[in-house]
Amino acid sequence: MRDFDEHNITAAVIERFAGTPDARLKRIMDSLVTHLHDFIRDVEPSFSEWEAAIGFLTRTGQMCDGKRQEFILLSDTLGASMLVDAINHRLPAGATETTVLGPFFVQDAPKFENGADISGGLEGELLFVEASVAAADGTMLPGAVVDVWQSDEEGFYDVQRTDLSSAALRGQFVADAQGRVYFRTIQPAAYPIPDDGPVGEMLTATNRHPWRPAHVHFMISAPGYETLVTHVFSAGDQYLDSDAVFGVKNSLIREFAHHQPGRLPDGTETGKHWRHLAYDFGLKPLAA
Amino acid sequence: MRDFDEHNITAAVIERFAGTPDARLKRIMDSLVTHLHDFIRDVEPSFSEWEAAIGFLTRTGQMCDGKRQEFILLSDTLGASMLVDAINHRLPAGATETTVLGPFFVQDAPKFENGADISGGLEGELLFVEASVAAADGTMLPGAVVDVWQSDEEGFYDVQRTDLSSAALRGQFVADAQGRVYFRTIQPAAYPIPDDGPVGEMLTATNRHPWRPAHVHFMISAPGYETLVTHVFSAGDQYLDSDAVFGVKNSLIREFAHHQPGRLPDGTETGKHWRHLAYDFGLKPLAA
Repeated sequence: MRDFDEHNITAAVIERFAGTPDARLKRIMDSLVTHLHDFIRDVEPSFSEWEAAIGFLTRTGQMCDGKRQEFILLSDTLGASMLVDAINHRLPAGATETTVLGPFFVQDAPKFENGADISGGLEGELLFVEASVAAADGTMLPGAVVDVWQSDEEGFYDVQRTDLSSAALRGQFVADAQGRVYFRTIQPAAYPIPDDGPVGEMLTATNRHPWRPAHVHFMISAPGYETLVTHVFSAGDQYLDSDAVFGVKNSLIREFAHHQPGRLPDGTETGKHWRHLAYDFGLKPLAA
Repeated sequence: MRDFDEHNITAAVIERFAGTPDARLKRIMDSLVTHLHDFIRDVEPSFSEWEAAIGFLTRTGQMCDGKRQEFILLSDTLGASMLVDAINHRLPAGATETTVLGPFFVQDAPKFENGADISGGLEGELLFVEASVAAADGTMLPGAVVDVWQSDEEGFYDVQRTDLSSAALRGQFVADAQGRVYFRTIQPAAYPIPDDGPVGEMLTATNRHPWRPAHVHFMISAPGYETLVTHVFSAGDQYLDSDAVFGVKNSLIREFAHHQPGRLPDGTETGKHWRHLAYDFGLKPLAA
């Protein structure tokens, strides 16, 4: 085929993918070409706009390294990550809502027993976290594996800090016989996503801020259930209505309640002002 | 706003771009989000497919350097480049059709007089090229600047060959008083686009070949006219119907006619078999 014009080229490109052996890949390429061409026909880019797009995508790829994933930031800030999350989590009643994994999860975090302090000695307001893990139908799940990770009081994760020699503010727990996990940490802070790259340029050019409201990340797995990836957000945060990555859900917001010095929920004493986060998680059963 | 789901997130992301100062950028971001989300809703990617897409885009950016532009190859092989070309060239009768610039154009190519040999000493079948440059209404355009560039008989451009110390098979001419340009070169060959990167992976996975039919590139500019970027393709090439970048138009195909040794069109003699390409170009007037 020859003589492609703005009307017939889309069908011609799709036809070129007709021999794709993998049916799923063929389906994806057909849809990609259809929607990419519709976008181009809609905005009718000039050559200089096309060149700007090529340059933006190139710089986005070149910003990535082992510690920075700029294309995930782009997906996050365009709402694509949360849309993929929503499509993959059509949940039954009782199952906790999900949100983005984010770029700061680390495999093989330190293992802790209930009651431990995961702050790694970092300064901040004492936060006592209590969580329960159950199936969506309410059945408690002892032995569930609970990963937690969060920012420090300045909004940085341990992997962003060059002054730390070991993990801090992250760890892995196992739910006890009542399906409970509890530990000490510090109050997390709101923080901007990394904005010194192409995604930051995009946010600046469109008058968007890069901030995320304060939250604690949870990843919870148990045999027979879908692994739950979510956050719990701190009520009252100024960025709850404008999270740069569109991750906030009302069901994931909790008071990180203020308390005077005294007895903590695990029976230990503290001489300091402390805060309290409690959340009951529900896991979705795997499809039979 | 909070609680975005697969149905309301698109409007929420578009709303986030409401404060974009530049109206054109706002229009582009709105359309991008609409079409990107429609694509995601259509194919419902799994997380691992989303991760594969992030990885593909990242590797595409990281394949780019001063001599390689993998995102342009991706745009070309998805038909996006030719669609942008078509949208930007709605031509009047008499104007030559356009095609992709490609990655091998070089600024400030060597300047030649009519009758010159641009082969740089490279071996190949002698090709005598004659071109005329006129406005779409037929008015001859003396003084038009004509850039030409092409592959060698093995399908490589000079910038791809590490054994060449100076330019070859490219040059800039000025049309004479009759609007004519003529020169000696060698017959170009079909060639594969660079396929050792992510775009090559995509072509392999979809059973597509990377070849382009043999052609000579032309870029022609004259005051008061849109700069013409096009190729002339060699009739009979096996890839005319399956050009990897969708660039072929019937009006751009010519016989590169075979001739016995003897007199060339410029009156000089050759003792070799030679081929003859003649093309009359028409330029579109700039909008008033």
